[in-house]
Amino acid sequence: MTNWLEIDTYAKKWIKEAGESIKESFSSELVIQTKSNKNDLVTQIDKGTEEFLIKQINTVFPSHRILGEEGISESLDNLKGIVWIIDPIDGTMNFVHMQRDFAISIGIYEDGVGKIGLIYDVVAGELYHSIKGHGVFMNDTKLKPLEKPNVEEAIIGLNATWVTENKRIDSSILSPLAKDVRGTRSFGSACLELAYIAAGRLDAYITLRLSPWDYAAGKVMIEELGGKVTSLRNEPLDLMTQQSFFASKPGLHEEILKKYLNNGAW
Amino acid sequence: MTNWLEIDTYAKKWIKEAGESIKESFSSELVIQTKSNKNDLVTQIDKGTEEFLIKQINTVFPSHRILGEEGISESLDNLKGIVWIIDPIDGTMNFVHMQRDFAISIGIYEDGVGKIGLIYDVVAGELYHSIKGHGVFMNDTKLKPLEKPNVEEAIIGLNATWVTENKRIDSSILSPLAKDVRGTRSFGSACLELAYIAAGRLDAYITLRLSPWDYAAGKVMIEELGGKVTSLRNEPLDLMTQQSFFASKPGLHEEILKKYLNNGAW
Repeated sequence: MTNWLEIDTYAKKWIKEAGESIKESFSSELVIQTKSNKNDLVTQIDKGTEEFLIKQINTVFPSHRILGEEGISESLDNLKGIVWIIDPIDGTMNFVHMQRDFAISIGIYEDGVGKIGLIYDVVAGELYHSIKGHGVFMNDTKLKPLEKPNVEEAIIGLNATWVTENKRIDSSILSPLAKDVRGTRSFGSACLELAYIAAGRLDAYITLRLSPWDYAAGKVMIEELGGKVTSLRNEPLDLMTQQSFFASKPGLHEEILKKYLNNGAW
Repeated sequence: MTNWLEIDTYAKKWIKEAGESIKESFSSELVIQTKSNKNDLVTQIDKGTEEFLIKQINTVFPSHRILGEEGISESLDNLKGIVWIIDPIDGTMNFVHMQRDFAISIGIYEDGVGKIGLIYDVVAGELYHSIKGHGVFMNDTKLKPLEKPNVEEAIIGLNATWVTENKRIDSSILSPLAKDVRGTRSFGSACLELAYIAAGRLDAYITLRLSPWDYAAGKVMIEELGGKVTSLRNEPLDLMTQQSFFASKPGLHEEILKKYLNNGAW
Protein backbone atom coordinates (compact mmCIF):
# COMPACT_ATOMS: atom_id res chain seq x y z
CA MET A 1 0.00 0.00 0.00
CA THR A 2 1.28 3.44 -0.98
CA ASN A 3 2.56 5.52 1.92
CA TRP A 4 1.32 8.98 0.87
CA LEU A 5 2.53 10.57 4.06
CA GLU A 6 6.08 9.47 3.27
CA ILE A 7 5.81 10.75 -0.30
CA ASP A 8 4.41 14.05 0.97
CA THR A 9 7.24 14.42 3.47
CA TYR A 10 9.88 13.97 0.77
CA ALA A 11 8.03 16.25 -1.66
CA LYS A 12 7.85 19.05 0.93
CA LYS A 13 11.54 18.68 1.73
CA TRP A 14 12.52 18.83 -1.94
CA ILE A 15 10.26 21.74 -2.87
CA LYS A 16 11.69 23.77 0.02
CA GLU A 17 15.26 22.89 -0.98
CA ALA A 18 14.52 23.84 -4.58
CA GLY A 19 13.07 27.16 -3.37
CA GLU A 20 16.15 27.95 -1.31
CA SER A 21 18.35 27.22 -4.28
CA ILE A 22 16.28 29.58 -6.45
CA LYS A 23 16.53 32.37 -3.89
CA GLU A 24 20.31 31.97 -3.74
CA SER A 25 20.50 32.19 -7.51
CA PHE A 26 18.90 35.65 -7.62
CA SER A 27 22.33 37.19 -7.40
CA SER A 28 23.65 35.21 -10.36
CA GLU A 29 22.90 36.52 -13.77
CA LEU A 30 19.84 34.98 -15.37
CA VAL A 31 20.57 33.47 -18.74
CA ILE A 32 17.33 33.72 -20.61
CA GLN A 33 16.40 31.55 -23.54
CA THR A 34 13.33 32.11 -25.64
CA LYS A 35 11.03 29.20 -26.34
CA SER A 36 8.72 29.21 -29.37
CA ASN A 37 6.20 31.51 -27.70
CA LYS A 38 7.51 34.98 -26.85
CA ASN A 39 5.68 34.84 -23.52
CA ASP A 40 7.38 31.63 -22.60
CA LEU A 41 10.73 32.53 -21.17
CA VAL A 42 12.81 29.83 -19.70
CA THR A 43 15.93 30.21 -17.67
CA GLN A 44 18.78 28.04 -16.60
CA ILE A 45 17.38 28.10 -13.10
CA ASP A 46 14.06 26.75 -14.36
CA LYS A 47 15.78 23.77 -15.95
CA GLY A 48 18.14 23.27 -13.03
CA THR A 49 15.22 23.14 -10.62
CA GLU A 50 13.44 20.50 -12.66
CA GLU A 51 16.62 18.43 -12.94
CA PHE A 52 17.10 18.63 -9.17
CA LEU A 53 13.56 17.40 -8.49
CA ILE A 54 13.78 14.60 -11.07
CA LYS A 55 17.02 13.37 -9.57
CA GLN A 56 15.55 13.21 -6.06
CA ILE A 57 12.38 11.45 -7.21
CA ASN A 58 14.28 8.89 -9.33
CA THR A 59 16.58 8.10 -6.42
CA VAL A 60 13.98 7.63 -3.68
CA PHE A 61 10.97 6.51 -5.72
CA PRO A 62 12.39 4.78 -8.83
CA SER A 63 8.99 3.37 -9.83
CA HIS A 64 7.33 6.79 -9.94
CA ARG A 65 7.08 8.59 -13.26
CA ILE A 66 7.44 12.32 -13.97
CA LEU A 67 5.65 14.79 -16.21
CA GLY A 68 7.44 18.13 -16.27
CA GLU A 69 7.16 21.44 -18.06
CA GLU A 70 10.73 21.51 -19.27
CA GLY A 71 10.40 18.09 -20.89
CA ILE A 72 13.62 16.81 -19.36
CA SER A 73 11.96 13.63 -18.14
CA GLU A 74 10.65 10.81 -20.34
CA SER A 75 7.57 11.66 -22.35
CA LEU A 76 4.41 10.02 -21.03
CA ASP A 77 1.40 8.85 -23.00
CA ASN A 78 -0.66 7.83 -19.98
CA LEU A 79 -0.97 8.51 -16.25
CA LYS A 80 -0.85 4.92 -14.97
CA GLY A 81 0.78 4.40 -11.58
CA ILE A 82 2.18 7.25 -9.55
CA VAL A 83 3.08 10.33 -11.61
CA TRP A 84 4.69 13.54 -10.35
CA ILE A 85 3.48 16.50 -12.43
CA ILE A 86 5.99 19.31 -12.03
CA ASP A 87 6.35 22.94 -12.93
CA PRO A 88 9.76 24.02 -11.61
CA ILE A 89 8.97 27.74 -12.00
CA ASP A 90 5.40 28.71 -12.78
CA GLY A 91 5.34 32.39 -13.69
CA THR A 92 8.71 32.46 -15.46
CA MET A 93 8.03 35.95 -16.83
CA ASN A 94 7.44 37.22 -13.28
CA PHE A 95 10.56 35.39 -12.19
CA VAL A 96 12.67 37.13 -14.81
CA HIS A 97 11.06 40.59 -14.62
CA MET A 98 9.98 40.84 -11.01
CA GLN A 99 11.92 38.28 -9.00
CA ARG A 100 8.65 37.51 -7.21
CA ASP A 101 5.13 36.15 -7.79
CA PHE A 102 6.37 32.83 -9.15
CA ALA A 103 6.05 29.39 -7.58
CA ILE A 104 7.11 25.76 -7.75
CA SER A 105 4.15 23.47 -8.39
CA ILE A 106 4.09 19.71 -7.73
CA GLY A 107 1.00 17.55 -8.15
CA ILE A 108 1.27 13.83 -7.42
CA TYR A 109 -1.34 11.62 -9.08
CA GLU A 110 -2.17 7.91 -8.90
CA ASP A 111 -3.80 6.44 -12.00
CA GLY A 112 -4.91 9.96 -12.95
CA VAL A 113 -6.36 10.85 -9.54
CA GLY A 114 -4.81 13.75 -7.63
CA LYS A 115 -3.37 12.66 -4.27
CA ILE A 116 -0.93 15.41 -3.25
CA GLY A 117 -0.69 19.08 -4.18
CA LEU A 118 2.20 21.39 -3.30
CA ILE A 119 2.61 25.01 -4.39
CA TYR A 120 5.53 26.98 -3.00
CA ASP A 121 5.55 30.76 -3.32
CA VAL A 122 9.28 30.97 -2.87
CA VAL A 123 9.69 34.70 -2.18
CA ALA A 124 6.63 35.07 0.07
CA GLY A 125 7.66 31.90 1.93
CA GLU A 126 4.18 30.44 1.57
CA LEU A 127 3.90 26.69 1.07
CA TYR A 128 0.40 25.54 0.17
CA HIS A 129 0.03 21.80 0.67
CA SER A 130 -2.62 19.15 0.60
CA ILE A 131 -3.03 15.39 0.81
CA LYS A 132 -6.38 14.28 -0.61
CA GLY A 133 -8.82 13.69 2.22
CA HIS A 134 -6.65 15.44 4.79
CA GLY A 135 -7.36 19.12 4.14
CA VAL A 136 -5.33 21.96 2.69
CA PHE A 137 -2.78 24.06 4.53
CA MET A 138 -0.90 27.30 3.92
CA ASN A 139 2.24 26.73 5.95
CA ASP A 140 0.72 25.67 9.31
CA THR A 141 -2.68 27.28 8.79
CA LYS A 142 -5.52 24.96 7.83
CA LEU A 143 -7.59 26.50 5.05
CA LYS A 144 -11.36 26.64 5.33
CA PRO A 145 -13.84 24.94 2.98
CA LEU A 146 -14.72 27.32 0.14
CA GLU A 147 -18.00 29.22 0.30
CA LYS A 148 -20.10 30.52 -2.55
CA PRO A 149 -19.73 34.21 -3.42
CA ASN A 150 -22.07 35.96 -5.84
CA VAL A 151 -20.66 37.18 -9.16
CA GLU A 152 -21.03 40.79 -7.97
CA GLU A 153 -18.87 40.10 -4.91
CA ALA A 154 -16.27 38.03 -6.73
CA ILE A 155 -12.67 38.87 -7.53
CA ILE A 156 -11.48 36.66 -10.36
CA GLY A 157 -8.16 36.01 -12.00
CA LEU A 158 -8.66 36.96 -15.66
CA ASN A 159 -6.01 38.37 -17.96
CA ALA A 160 -6.86 41.21 -20.34
CA THR A 161 -5.83 38.89 -23.20
CA TRP A 162 -9.10 36.95 -22.98
CA VAL A 163 -11.33 40.00 -23.27
CA THR A 164 -9.44 41.41 -26.26
CA GLU A 165 -9.05 39.91 -29.71
CA ASN A 166 -7.32 36.53 -29.40
CA LYS A 167 -7.16 33.16 -31.11
CA ARG A 168 -9.02 31.16 -28.50
CA ILE A 169 -12.26 32.86 -27.49
CA ASP A 170 -14.46 35.63 -28.85
CA SER A 171 -13.68 38.64 -26.70
CA SER A 172 -17.39 39.39 -26.25
CA ILE A 173 -17.96 36.18 -24.24
CA LEU A 174 -15.95 37.00 -21.12
CA SER A 175 -16.24 40.81 -21.29
CA PRO A 176 -19.64 40.93 -19.52
CA LEU A 177 -18.20 38.80 -16.73
CA ALA A 178 -15.23 41.17 -16.35
CA LYS A 179 -17.73 43.99 -16.10
CA ASP A 180 -20.05 42.38 -13.55
CA VAL A 181 -17.54 41.09 -11.01
CA ARG A 182 -16.24 43.25 -8.20
CA GLY A 183 -12.78 43.10 -9.70
CA THR A 184 -10.35 41.21 -11.89
CA ARG A 185 -6.73 40.49 -11.18
CA SER A 186 -3.85 39.05 -13.13
CA PHE A 187 -0.81 37.93 -11.19
CA GLY A 188 0.94 36.11 -14.02
CA SER A 189 1.29 32.73 -12.28
CA ALA A 190 -1.52 30.21 -12.80
CA CYS A 191 -0.54 27.95 -9.94
CA LEU A 192 -0.38 30.91 -7.53
CA GLU A 193 -3.80 32.09 -8.65
CA LEU A 194 -5.09 28.59 -7.85
CA ALA A 195 -3.42 28.67 -4.45
CA TYR A 196 -5.13 32.04 -3.90
CA ILE A 197 -8.52 30.43 -4.60
CA ALA A 198 -7.73 27.74 -2.04
CA ALA A 199 -6.81 30.47 0.45
CA GLY A 200 -10.00 32.43 -0.30
CA ARG A 201 -8.02 35.34 -1.76
CA LEU A 202 -9.49 34.93 -5.24
CA ASP A 203 -12.90 33.53 -6.08
CA ALA A 204 -12.21 32.09 -9.52
CA TYR A 205 -9.53 31.82 -12.20
CA ILE A 206 -10.11 31.60 -15.93
CA THR A 207 -7.64 31.09 -18.74
CA LEU A 208 -7.90 29.77 -22.26
CA ARG A 209 -4.68 27.79 -22.31
CA LEU A 210 -3.19 25.83 -19.47
CA SER A 211 -0.91 22.82 -19.25
CA PRO A 212 -1.26 20.02 -16.69
CA TRP A 213 1.84 21.07 -14.75
CA ASP A 214 0.31 24.54 -14.28
CA TYR A 215 -2.75 23.22 -12.47
CA ALA A 216 -2.00 19.66 -11.26
CA ALA A 217 -1.27 20.80 -7.70
CA GLY A 218 -3.92 23.52 -7.50
CA LYS A 219 -6.65 21.14 -8.68
CA VAL A 220 -5.99 18.84 -5.72
CA MET A 221 -6.32 21.75 -3.28
CA ILE A 222 -9.38 23.41 -4.74
CA GLU A 223 -11.31 20.14 -5.04
CA GLU A 224 -10.31 19.16 -1.51
CA LEU A 225 -11.93 22.41 -0.29
CA GLY A 226 -15.15 21.88 -2.27
CA GLY A 227 -14.33 24.02 -5.31
CA LYS A 228 -14.72 23.06 -8.96
CA VAL A 229 -12.03 22.66 -11.63
CA THR A 230 -13.03 22.02 -15.24
CA SER A 231 -12.41 23.29 -18.73
CA LEU A 232 -14.22 26.48 -19.76
CA ARG A 233 -16.66 24.16 -21.57
CA ASN A 234 -17.36 22.43 -18.25
CA GLU A 235 -15.50 19.28 -19.30
CA PRO A 236 -13.31 17.25 -16.93
CA LEU A 237 -9.66 18.17 -17.47
CA ASP A 238 -7.40 15.87 -19.45
CA LEU A 239 -3.96 15.86 -17.86
CA MET A 240 -2.32 14.73 -21.10
CA THR A 241 -3.04 17.94 -23.04
CA GLN A 242 -3.40 21.74 -22.98
CA GLN A 243 -6.92 23.02 -22.42
CA SER A 244 -9.01 25.97 -21.42
CA PHE A 245 -9.32 26.17 -17.66
CA PHE A 246 -11.90 27.33 -15.15
CA ALA A 247 -11.39 26.93 -11.40
CA SER A 248 -13.85 28.43 -8.98
CA LYS A 249 -15.42 28.39 -5.59
CA PRO A 250 -18.55 26.20 -5.49
CA GLY A 251 -21.80 27.74 -6.70
CA LEU A 252 -19.95 30.52 -8.48
CA HIS A 253 -18.74 27.92 -11.00
CA GLU A 254 -22.32 27.02 -11.91
CA GLU A 255 -23.46 30.66 -11.91
CA ILE A 256 -20.69 31.79 -14.29
CA LEU A 257 -21.24 28.80 -16.58
CA LYS A 258 -24.97 29.48 -16.75
CA LYS A 259 -24.98 33.28 -17.04
CA TYR A 260 -21.90 33.87 -19.20
CA LEU A 261 -20.80 30.61 -20.83
CA ASN A 262 -24.04 29.04 -22.08
CA ASN A 263 -23.35 26.09 -19.76
CA GLY A 264 -20.10 25.41 -21.57
CA ALA A 265 -21.57 25.45 -25.10
CA TRP A 266 -20.00 28.79 -26.13
CA MET B 1 14.82 76.48 4.79
CA THR B 2 12.85 73.24 4.80
CA ASN B 3 14.69 70.27 6.26
CA TRP B 4 13.51 67.52 3.89
CA LEU B 5 15.75 64.94 5.52
CA GLU B 6 14.04 65.53 8.86
CA ILE B 7 10.60 65.28 7.26
CA ASP B 8 11.65 62.10 5.47
CA THR B 9 12.92 60.55 8.70
CA TYR B 10 9.62 61.18 10.48
CA ALA B 11 7.59 60.02 7.50
CA LYS B 12 9.50 56.73 7.33
CA LYS B 13 9.08 56.17 11.06
CA TRP B 14 5.34 56.79 10.91
CA ILE B 15 4.70 54.70 7.79
CA LYS B 16 6.50 51.76 9.40
CA GLU B 17 4.55 52.19 12.64
CA ALA B 18 1.31 52.35 10.69
CA GLY B 19 2.29 49.17 8.85
CA GLU B 20 3.01 47.30 12.07
CA SER B 21 -0.33 48.36 13.45
CA ILE B 22 -2.07 47.07 10.31
CA LYS B 23 -0.32 43.72 10.56
CA GLU B 24 -1.37 43.33 14.17
CA SER B 25 -4.96 44.08 13.25
CA PHE B 26 -5.17 41.13 10.82
CA SER B 27 -6.36 38.97 13.67
CA SER B 28 -9.19 41.35 14.56
CA GLU B 29 -12.33 41.10 12.53
CA LEU B 30 -12.49 43.57 9.67
CA VAL B 31 -15.56 45.75 9.80
CA ILE B 32 -16.26 46.59 6.21
CA GLN B 33 -18.25 49.60 5.10
CA THR B 34 -19.32 50.15 1.53
CA LYS B 35 -18.66 53.52 -0.07
CA SER B 36 -20.70 54.67 -3.06
CA ASN B 37 -18.70 52.57 -5.50
CA LYS B 38 -19.00 48.83 -4.96
CA ASN B 39 -15.28 48.44 -5.67
CA ASP B 40 -14.40 50.90 -3.00
CA LEU B 41 -14.34 49.06 0.26
CA VAL B 42 -13.16 50.86 3.28
CA THR B 43 -12.43 49.42 6.64
CA GLN B 44 -12.02 50.69 10.15
CA ILE B 45 -8.32 50.00 9.82
CA ASP B 46 -8.10 52.22 6.75
CA LYS B 47 -9.61 55.14 8.67
CA GLY B 48 -7.62 54.41 11.80
CA THR B 49 -4.37 54.46 9.82
CA GLU B 50 -5.17 57.83 8.27
CA GLU B 51 -6.11 59.26 11.68
CA PHE B 52 -2.83 58.01 13.13
CA LEU B 53 -0.79 59.65 10.36
CA ILE B 54 -2.73 62.94 10.57
CA LYS B 55 -2.21 63.10 14.32
CA GLN B 56 1.55 62.62 13.98
CA ILE B 57 1.88 65.19 11.19
CA ASN B 58 -0.23 67.78 13.01
CA THR B 59 1.82 67.35 16.16
CA VAL B 60 5.31 67.56 14.66
CA PHE B 61 4.64 69.73 11.59
CA PRO B 62 1.62 71.91 12.48
CA SER B 63 2.09 74.15 9.42
CA HIS B 64 1.91 71.24 6.96
CA ARG B 65 -1.40 70.44 5.33
CA ILE B 66 -2.85 67.03 4.49
CA LEU B 67 -4.78 65.61 1.56
CA GLY B 68 -6.05 62.11 2.34
CA GLU B 69 -8.25 59.50 0.72
CA GLU B 70 -10.58 59.06 3.64
CA GLY B 71 -11.31 62.79 3.78
CA ILE B 72 -10.76 62.98 7.52
CA SER B 73 -8.48 66.00 7.18
CA GLU B 74 -9.54 69.49 6.07
CA SER B 75 -10.51 69.78 2.43
CA LEU B 76 -7.94 71.58 0.31
CA ASP B 77 -8.55 73.77 -2.74
CA ASN B 78 -4.88 74.36 -3.53
CA LEU B 79 -1.45 72.82 -2.94
CA LYS B 80 0.36 75.84 -1.52
CA GLY B 81 3.03 75.18 1.08
CA ILE B 82 3.92 71.66 2.20
CA VAL B 83 1.15 69.11 1.65
CA TRP B 84 1.19 65.45 2.66
CA ILE B 85 -0.88 63.40 0.19
CA ILE B 86 -1.85 60.19 1.90
CA ASP B 87 -3.49 56.90 1.02
CA PRO B 88 -3.62 54.90 4.27
CA ILE B 89 -4.41 51.63 2.46
CA ASP B 90 -4.11 51.59 -1.31
CA GLY B 91 -5.65 48.35 -2.59
CA THR B 92 -8.41 48.12 0.01
CA MET B 93 -10.09 45.30 -1.90
CA ASN B 94 -6.86 43.28 -1.77
CA PHE B 95 -6.54 44.13 1.89
CA VAL B 96 -10.00 42.77 2.65
CA HIS B 97 -9.93 39.76 0.31
CA MET B 98 -6.27 38.79 0.27
CA GLN B 99 -4.59 40.33 3.31
CA ARG B 100 -1.70 41.19 0.97
CA ASP B 101 -0.81 43.30 -2.08
CA PHE B 102 -1.86 46.57 -0.46
CA ALA B 103 0.35 49.46 0.59
CA ILE B 104 0.50 52.75 2.46
CA SER B 105 1.34 55.65 0.14
CA ILE B 106 2.66 59.04 1.25
CA GLY B 107 3.72 61.77 -1.17
CA ILE B 108 4.98 65.06 0.25
CA TYR B 109 4.73 68.08 -2.05
CA GLU B 110 5.84 71.71 -1.79
CA ASP B 111 3.81 74.19 -3.81
CA GLY B 112 2.65 71.32 -6.01
CA VAL B 113 6.13 69.87 -6.62
CA GLY B 114 6.84 66.32 -5.38
CA LYS B 115 9.66 66.21 -2.84
CA ILE B 116 9.29 62.89 -1.02
CA GLY B 117 7.65 59.61 -2.00
CA LEU B 118 7.08 56.66 0.31
CA ILE B 119 5.27 53.43 -0.56
CA TYR B 120 5.21 50.67 2.02
CA ASP B 121 4.19 47.16 0.97
CA VAL B 122 3.32 46.14 4.49
CA VAL B 123 3.14 42.35 4.10
CA ALA B 124 6.17 42.00 1.81
CA GLY B 125 8.13 44.32 4.11
CA GLU B 126 9.23 46.44 1.16
CA LEU B 127 9.56 50.18 1.74
CA TYR B 128 10.13 52.17 -1.46
CA HIS B 129 11.40 55.66 -0.67
CA SER B 130 12.71 58.69 -2.45
CA ILE B 131 13.74 62.27 -1.81
CA LYS B 132 13.75 64.33 -5.01
CA GLY B 133 17.30 64.61 -6.30
CA HIS B 134 18.62 61.88 -4.02
CA GLY B 135 17.57 58.69 -5.83
CA VAL B 136 15.03 55.98 -5.09
CA PHE B 137 15.49 53.03 -2.77
CA MET B 138 13.70 49.77 -2.05
CA ASN B 139 14.61 49.20 1.58
CA ASP B 140 18.41 49.62 1.41
CA THR B 141 18.78 48.88 -2.30
CA LYS B 142 19.28 51.85 -4.60
CA LEU B 143 17.11 51.49 -7.70
CA LYS B 144 18.62 52.00 -11.13
CA PRO B 145 17.59 54.67 -13.64
CA LEU B 146 14.83 53.30 -15.87
CA GLU B 147 15.74 52.07 -19.35
CA LYS B 148 13.56 51.98 -22.43
CA PRO B 149 11.94 48.65 -23.29
CA ASN B 150 10.15 48.05 -26.60
CA VAL B 151 6.41 47.49 -26.55
CA GLU B 152 6.94 43.84 -27.50
CA GLU B 153 9.17 43.30 -24.46
CA ALA B 154 7.01 45.23 -22.04
CA ILE B 155 4.90 43.99 -19.15
CA ILE B 156 2.30 46.59 -18.29
CA GLY B 157 -0.21 47.00 -15.52
CA LEU B 158 -3.59 47.14 -17.24
CA ASN B 159 -6.87 45.91 -15.81
CA ALA B 160 -9.32 43.99 -18.02
CA THR B 161 -11.88 46.74 -17.27
CA TRP B 162 -10.21 49.11 -19.72
CA VAL B 163 -10.30 46.74 -22.67
CA THR B 164 -13.96 45.82 -22.13
CA GLU B 165 -17.00 48.08 -22.37
CA ASN B 166 -16.65 50.86 -19.80
CA LYS B 167 -17.66 54.48 -19.26
CA ARG B 168 -14.25 56.05 -19.73
CA ILE B 169 -12.55 54.77 -22.86
CA ASP B 170 -13.58 52.92 -26.00
CA SER B 171 -12.41 49.37 -25.45
CA SER B 172 -10.90 49.22 -28.94
CA ILE B 173 -8.25 51.85 -28.07
CA LEU B 174 -6.20 49.89 -25.55
CA SER B 175 -6.97 46.38 -26.84
CA PRO B 176 -4.23 46.44 -29.51
CA LEU B 177 -1.73 47.46 -26.84
CA ALA B 178 -2.82 44.58 -24.60
CA LYS B 179 -2.28 42.29 -27.58
CA ASP B 180 1.15 43.59 -28.58
CA VAL B 181 2.90 43.70 -25.21
CA ARG B 182 4.66 40.68 -23.77
CA GLY B 183 2.15 40.54 -20.96
CA THR B 184 -0.35 42.46 -18.85
CA ARG B 185 -0.78 42.28 -15.11
CA SER B 186 -3.28 43.62 -12.64
CA PHE B 187 -2.29 43.60 -8.99
CA GLY B 188 -5.14 45.74 -7.71
CA SER B 189 -3.04 48.42 -6.02
CA ALA B 190 -2.09 51.46 -8.10
CA CYS B 191 0.66 52.66 -5.80
CA LEU B 192 2.27 49.22 -5.74
CA GLU B 193 2.16 49.04 -9.53
CA LEU B 194 3.98 52.38 -9.58
CA ALA B 195 6.54 51.10 -7.09
CA TYR B 196 6.99 48.10 -9.41
CA ILE B 197 7.79 50.42 -12.31
CA ALA B 198 10.39 52.15 -10.15
CA ALA B 199 11.87 48.75 -9.31
CA GLY B 200 11.87 47.69 -12.97
CA ARG B 201 9.33 44.95 -12.30
CA LEU B 202 6.68 46.51 -14.54
CA ASP B 203 7.32 48.71 -17.57
CA ALA B 204 4.18 50.83 -17.53
CA TYR B 205 0.84 51.27 -15.74
CA ILE B 206 -2.35 52.56 -17.27
CA THR B 207 -5.68 53.31 -15.67
CA LEU B 208 -8.60 55.53 -16.56
CA ARG B 209 -9.36 56.82 -13.10
CA LEU B 210 -6.89 57.64 -10.40
CA SER B 211 -6.87 60.01 -7.44
CA PRO B 212 -3.88 62.08 -6.30
CA TRP B 213 -3.31 59.99 -3.16
CA ASP B 214 -3.02 56.86 -5.35
CA TYR B 215 -0.09 58.23 -7.33
CA ALA B 216 1.45 61.14 -5.37
CA ALA B 217 4.29 58.99 -3.98
CA GLY B 218 4.85 56.86 -7.08
CA LYS B 219 5.11 59.95 -9.32
CA VAL B 220 8.06 61.24 -7.29
CA MET B 221 9.89 57.90 -7.65
CA ILE B 222 9.25 57.28 -11.33
CA GLU B 223 10.22 60.82 -12.34
CA GLU B 224 13.34 60.63 -10.16
CA LEU B 225 14.39 57.55 -12.16
CA GLY B 226 13.74 59.17 -15.54
CA GLY B 227 10.27 57.77 -16.20
CA LYS B 228 7.20 59.70 -17.35
CA VAL B 229 3.92 60.28 -15.52
CA THR B 230 1.02 62.01 -17.29
CA SER B 231 -2.64 61.58 -18.03
CA LEU B 232 -3.57 59.18 -20.83
CA ARG B 233 -3.97 62.29 -22.99
CA ASN B 234 -0.37 63.22 -22.25
CA GLU B 235 -1.36 66.13 -20.01
CA PRO B 236 0.47 67.01 -16.80
CA LEU B 237 -1.44 65.60 -13.82
CA ASP B 238 -3.61 67.88 -11.70
CA LEU B 239 -3.27 66.81 -8.06
CA MET B 240 -6.61 68.41 -7.15
CA THR B 241 -8.77 66.03 -9.19
CA GLN B 242 -9.30 62.48 -10.52
CA GLN B 243 -7.82 61.78 -13.94
CA SER B 244 -6.74 59.12 -16.35
CA PHE B 245 -3.22 58.00 -15.63
CA PHE B 246 -0.24 56.74 -17.60
CA ALA B 247 3.13 56.05 -15.97
CA SER B 248 5.90 54.47 -17.95
CA LYS B 249 9.56 53.91 -18.42
CA PRO B 250 11.12 56.54 -20.71
CA GLY B 251 10.80 56.01 -24.45
CA LEU B 252 8.02 53.49 -23.97
CA HIS B 253 5.77 56.37 -22.89
CA GLU B 254 6.31 58.14 -26.23
CA GLU B 255 6.01 54.89 -28.21
CA ILE B 256 2.67 53.92 -26.64
CA LEU B 257 1.31 57.46 -27.00
CA LYS B 258 2.27 57.55 -30.67
CA LYS B 259 1.30 54.03 -31.76
CA TYR B 260 -1.84 53.46 -29.69
CA LEU B 261 -3.12 56.77 -28.29
CA ASN B 262 -2.89 59.19 -31.22
CA ASN B 263 -0.43 61.25 -29.16
CA GLY B 264 -3.06 61.76 -26.49
CA ALA B 265 -5.84 62.90 -28.83
CA TRP B 266 -7.94 59.71 -28.56
